[in-house]
Amino acid sequence: MNITSFGSRVEAYRQRVEAALDRCIPAPGTYPARLHEAMRYSTQGGKRLRALLVYAAGEVLALDPEALDAPACALELIHAYSLVHDDLPSMDDDDLRRGRPTTHKQYDEATAILVGDGLQALAFAVLAREGQHLVAAQRLQMISTLARASGSCGMVGGQAVDLESEQRSLTLAELECLHMHKTGALILASLMLVTQASAFADAGWFNALERYGRLIGLAYQIQDDVLDIEGSSADLGKTAGKDVAAHKSTYPSLMGLDPAKRRAAQLFDEARTALAVFGDRAEPLVWLADHIQGRKH
Amino acid sequence: MNITSFGSRVEAYRQRVEAALDRCIPAPGTYPARLHEAMRYSTQGGKRLRALLVYAAGEVLALDPEALDAPACALELIHAYSLVHDDLPSMDDDDLRRGRPTTHKQYDEATAILVGDGLQALAFAVLAREGQHLVAAQRLQMISTLARASGSCGMVGGQAVDLESEQRSLTLAELECLHMHKTGALILASLMLVTQASAFADAGWFNALERYGRLIGLAYQIQDDVLDIEGSSADLGKTAGKDVAAHKSTYPSLMGLDPAKRRAAQLFDEARTALAVFGDRAEPLVWLADHIQGRKH
Repeated sequence: MNITSFGSRVEAYRQRVEAALDRCIPAPGTYPARLHEAMRYSTQGGKRLRALLVYAAGEVLALDPEALDAPACALELIHAYSLVHDDLPSMDDDDLRRGRPTTHKQYDEATAILVGDGLQALAFAVLAREGQHLVAAQRLQMISTLARASGSCGMVGGQAVDLESEQRSLTLAELECLHMHKTGALILASLMLVTQASAFADAGWFNALERYGRLIGLAYQIQDDVLDIEGSSADLGKTAGKDVAAHKSTYPSLMGLDPAKRRAAQLFDEARTALAVFGDRAEPLVWLADHIQGRKH
Repeated sequence: MNITSFGSRVEAYRQRVEAALDRCIPAPGTYPARLHEAMRYSTQGGKRLRALLVYAAGEVLALDPEALDAPACALELIHAYSLVHDDLPSMDDDDLRRGRPTTHKQYDEATAILVGDGLQALAFAVLAREGQHLVAAQRLQMISTLARASGSCGMVGGQAVDLESEQRSLTLAELECLHMHKTGALILASLMLVTQASAFADAGWFNALERYGRLIGLAYQIQDDVLDIEGSSADLGKTAGKDVAAHKSTYPSLMGLDPAKRRAAQLFDEARTALAVFGDRAEPLVWLADHIQGRKH
């Protein structure tokens, strides 16, 4: 294991997944050039949280990061496509994302739809690509997990419920279910893809990683709701105060702001506790939990 | 081989892929219920041309149809998602599809976007699902082929160029390139997935099937352009005369109506000729070429 903190390697991992993204998107000028330019635009920026979870969990399980480039890249492609589609006028209608114009603002609506469609296909192409680090059965398992987590019973389903729920008030249980789909499923998948990349299987370890994934996913979303109230658009890189303006059910609106913050803090604590089975080796994921907890955007 | 014509089995194969589609879409009532209802709505109807190509080519290679249900189903899911997205107001803006209201008319625009996203993910989930008929390496190869054929260097790229080309006149070479992407890539993929499902490899046979796929794909599109002029909306199940109204470059507009018809007939002939290597065993794909050539929608 590494004796220096994961924090010292975060920037290198970010660059690593960004290089992988840049490699997998067809080179500039490839037919059709404008679509590929828009796909590249739509994958730039961002915190790369899902990729960092992959590399951090990979360190915990002592996996070769080369084996993790494909799943890290595929997760970021799916995440990027979901943002492009969620920002569309008929969805959340957002002009600002990652501090820049959203894809449909920078290009046009039809292009944004096609960019999302193309990025989704690319995510599965990346996982299906032959490589020396993963055997066929592992890649298939990853594709299956990613397709389910991002599909209608996961992320896409969560977004559908989110849109429906703008017209009515949710219970806390309904809100939690929505978020476990919309955001939680892909964050949990980030951890599952790492366990699938592992050549050995230890149920205790895998359960710990999945539990951490579920808790971080929910904590992240509560924090998002809090930041929508407390953060500035400049910090967030997207429009702040949208939930309140849209009268959306959020953790703060249902629980109150301070109880929502305490609930998030409690979930981050539970996520760190879930890693106890790894002892000191858990440092990368503990560092990441701390880092996410302290985020301003 | 079957001594009766493929035509006598077409309806059974249609029902076969429709049963497979029905099984793979989450059961009615599955959370989120409205999204899954809309996904089922969007996969109903249609000629099932891509699935029929799969089963017909499977007969030519003497493959077990059970091994072909997953690729047939995945191709129809991708095709259905592409229609839902192409019909959106910011794309081709169509109200009618397969004789019924388009998905965004029947539900709403946001739901139609999510339906398409969910159907795409489901296509890859279906191919990744474990089964007794295909080994992991075959499934991975199919996923890779389908992701490329449907992505930004295939179908999605073709649609992007199609939208860009509404503002200007294309050359015949540009139009052919556009259609080889937009329609041709997925039709060709239908044949490639069958060769990948085959346990043996005969380069001559596989090349013949791929050549047939390329020729049928292009002939199909020229015919589409002709039907847009000569067909009625009632026959087509979608709005007729749209290309002319939009001043789009089509084969008839670039070549003239009669030369376009002759070109399509010539391509169908070449497609049948490409199957010579199979002798009498080619009947299912010859029948399908005849059937497509005679279609009114």
